[in-house]
Amino acid sequence: MEDARQQRYERGHDPARVLALSDGVFAIVITLLVLEIHVPDLGNGESLRAALREVRPSFVAFLISFVIVAIAWAGHRDLFSLIRRTDRVLVWLNILYLLPLSILPFGASLLATYDRDPVALRMYGILLVAISITRLAIWAYATNRTYLLFVPIDAHSRWAAFVISVSPALAYGIAILIAKKSPAASLLIYAAVPILYFVVITVLRSASPRDAAERDFT
Amino acid sequence: MEDARQQRYERGHDPARVLALSDGVFAIVITLLVLEIHVPDLGNGESLRAALREVRPSFVAFLISFVIVAIAWAGHRDLFSLIRRTDRVLVWLNILYLLPLSILPFGASLLATYDRDPVALRMYGILLVAISITRLAIWAYATNRTYLLFVPIDAHSRWAAFVISVSPALAYGIAILIAKKSPAASLLIYAAVPILYFVVITVLRSASPRDAAERDFT
Amino acid sequence: MEDARQQRYERGHDPARVLALSDGVFAIVITLLVLEIHVPDLGNGESLRAALREVRPSFVAFLISFVIVAIAWAGHRDLFSLIRRTDRVLVWLNILYLLPLSILPFGASLLATYDRDPVALRMYGILLVAISITRLAIWAYATNRTYLLFVPIDAHSRWAAFVISVSPALAYGIAILIAKKSPAASLLIYAAVPILYFVVITVLRSASPRDAAERDFT
Amino acid sequence: MEDARQQRYERGHDPARVLALSDGVFAIVITLLVLEIHVPDLGNGESLRAALREVRPSFVAFLISFVIVAIAWAGHRDLFSLIRRTDRVLVWLNILYLLPLSILPFGASLLATYDRDPVALRMYGILLVAISITRLAIWAYATNRTYLLFVPIDAHSRWAAFVISVSPALAYGIAILIAKKSPAASLLIYAAVPILYFVVITVLRSASPRDAAERDFT
Repeated sequence: MEDARQQRYERGHDPARVLALSDGVFAIVITLLVLEIHVPDLGNGESLRAALREVRPSFVAFLISFVIVAIAWAGHRDLFSLIRRTDRVLVWLNILYLLPLSILPFGASLLATYDRDPVALRMYGILLVAISITRLAIWAYATNRTYLLFVPIDAHSRWAAFVISVSPALAYGIAILIAKKSPAASLLIYAAVPILYFVVITVLRSASPRDAAERDFT
Repeated sequence: MEDARQQRYERGHDPARVLALSDGVFAIVITLLVLEIHVPDLGNGESLRAALREVRPSFVAFLISFVIVAIAWAGHRDLFSLIRRTDRVLVWLNILYLLPLSILPFGASLLATYDRDPVALRMYGILLVAISITRLAIWAYATNRTYLLFVPIDAHSRWAAFVISVSPALAYGIAILIAKKSPAASLLIYAAVPILYFVVITVLRSASPRDAAERDFT
Repeated sequence: MEDARQQRYERGHDPARVLALSDGVFAIVITLLVLEIHVPDLGNGESLRAALREVRPSFVAFLISFVIVAIAWAGHRDLFSLIRRTDRVLVWLNILYLLPLSILPFGASLLATYDRDPVALRMYGILLVAISITRLAIWAYATNRTYLLFVPIDAHSRWAAFVISVSPALAYGIAILIAKKSPAASLLIYAAVPILYFVVITVLRSASPRDAAERDFT
Repeated sequence: MEDARQQRYERGHDPARVLALSDGVFAIVITLLVLEIHVPDLGNGESLRAALREVRPSFVAFLISFVIVAIAWAGHRDLFSLIRRTDRVLVWLNILYLLPLSILPFGASLLATYDRDPVALRMYGILLVAISITRLAIWAYATNRTYLLFVPIDAHSRWAAFVISVSPALAYGIAILIAKKSPAASLLIYAAVPILYFVVITVLRSASPRDAAERDFT
């Protein structure tokens, strides 16, 4: 009887469908982004080359968003490779995480159309901060509960992941603050943070003890 | 020979592809919803901030629908964590359940465009009632057939799940009825039911015996 | 060495990714269909109820297509529950099968816009015939090669599945032929075939010997 | 302890989610392509048949792109059937591979609208070259690292796969170069390369030793 209850517990806490839903959302979001790049109509005597030049902001917004979704997916994969079971709170934190992610195509579209407007830049930044914070919430919740994990996570690794999640959020915060004064600098930050991310994660990796969880971060 | 027949039976009744299709539909529906929020065109001297304010009904419709799809998915996951085999009827009941779910983006779009129109509010409500009723049909059918389940479900748990499915449907029914007299109240009900859902499920959880199936509901 | 070769053979012929791609396409097609139903703009003093009435052909095209995709998916699931390995030809036959399926949203959209036009009705019918024929090709190819199957399929079951695949195709053929003379009858056939399908499959099921593969068809 | 570390290593390098994301993207891209074929509006007294004739370039662009995505998927499946573990670089190479793939619907849309314009033809060709090159990068990286593979790949198979990846890229390169002089020939190359691909792969297959990896290529 206890055995059957344990089995039901495991089935009810199996992360399989959480990952299926999340990977579905990631795949759709990353593919929908390109739909925001519209094939231009040619004006009077305009060449396609000139018309495509006007689409460039769309391309920039697409590329930035593609890289951000890819990093989010890689981080989600790293995190859930440590997680053995999900519980109610984790399921809902994950859905909360998928919320800003699924709004990102709208944010990218807004950025593509009004790439110099502080309001568009700020809304885009808020989405990115929300992705970072909800990711951090999943991490903080899960790593503090050993029964959800394959192996307990030590304090050092928890701190490393905290830095990885918070540093982009801080940079996005600055981009939001300066959006009005300098829209170009704000856009540049959104484009540059992925590079910052790769640098931070590489430094953390090489500075970590050999068996730390963050050594295996993608 | 009997053994091979048993194996074929198990393969033919494996829920794996039912879940793959369902999770695909859930992921697409939850991500498509945002496509109904259109980036506004700026009128003569209009600011983006003012233009975005006009998009607010779209945002409200998106958020309500996102939460409703998320709850539907969590409920589907809970239900199928109890189900070991699917049969013909269960497969078709599940497809019937996916029908109103896949129409929801249209309902959300209708609600976003005509958020004070009783016809839009009613159509949205009918979709939500249909999702509740088809979910209830899956639950009633599956839990009554122990050969489809991992462990038999007792009467108490069946009743608890019945309440969880029916109470939102009742609330939606009221929203449909009052849509003409008071569109604002109707919309408020759609927004409030998820909160009601979380309250009901929490109460049921704490009031349930320790080994009841509904204790593990998400 | 022989062992390693055998393992590589099994991995290279594992149907897992064929099913992942197919279920993805099924889920997307069934969900995209609703995108063809556009939220109507209200004309001068027109009520939403009246405007929605004009959308009715879209709804009919959506419902017919939804049921057809659902039946196609259920049939695909039945078929692949018998298949243990895929080979090159089967992979490409399956892709050939996904081709008319992925064009179906266009066909449904065409039917929704021009529901009395013989050209639209014929194009829709041709897509349905193509889905039936490619399905039949997969079935004929796979069931003739026991090394692709879990258990050999006997002649009776092969014939039953042949009837299940061909009878809708014949009905669609008639719908294509009469599309010019009687568009309404043609549309009616598209709507009625699913019902015919359920009747045929039920008859076959009850007439089949106890251990025939078609007894387990969904 | 070493054992737990090994298990965490295996989980962190499991290709399951890489395949889930990739198959999701493949399924979406192959299904989104058809969205670029728009249901035509009928002009004054124009018949649907005539209107559909104008949609023909969209159909051609759709069909070419469908076959190209299908071949890309089959190649990705072949490649990953050899791969046992993924590491950081492989995950990011795979994302780099998904980038041009997810832009392909835009390229197909551009080609459908401006099928005689050298700029559209070149952009389409560049996407196809990018898909080939990133695929080659994954192959070159993975097959050179036996710890990522189920079985080591011999030099002959590596060379065969190199040819399979590079020959289409070369043909696309020619199509890009002649796009200005002869748009029709350029388009013809895009349509013909899949046929070339099937010929090359069949020749390689029959010319290969019995236990070479490329014998099992789809």
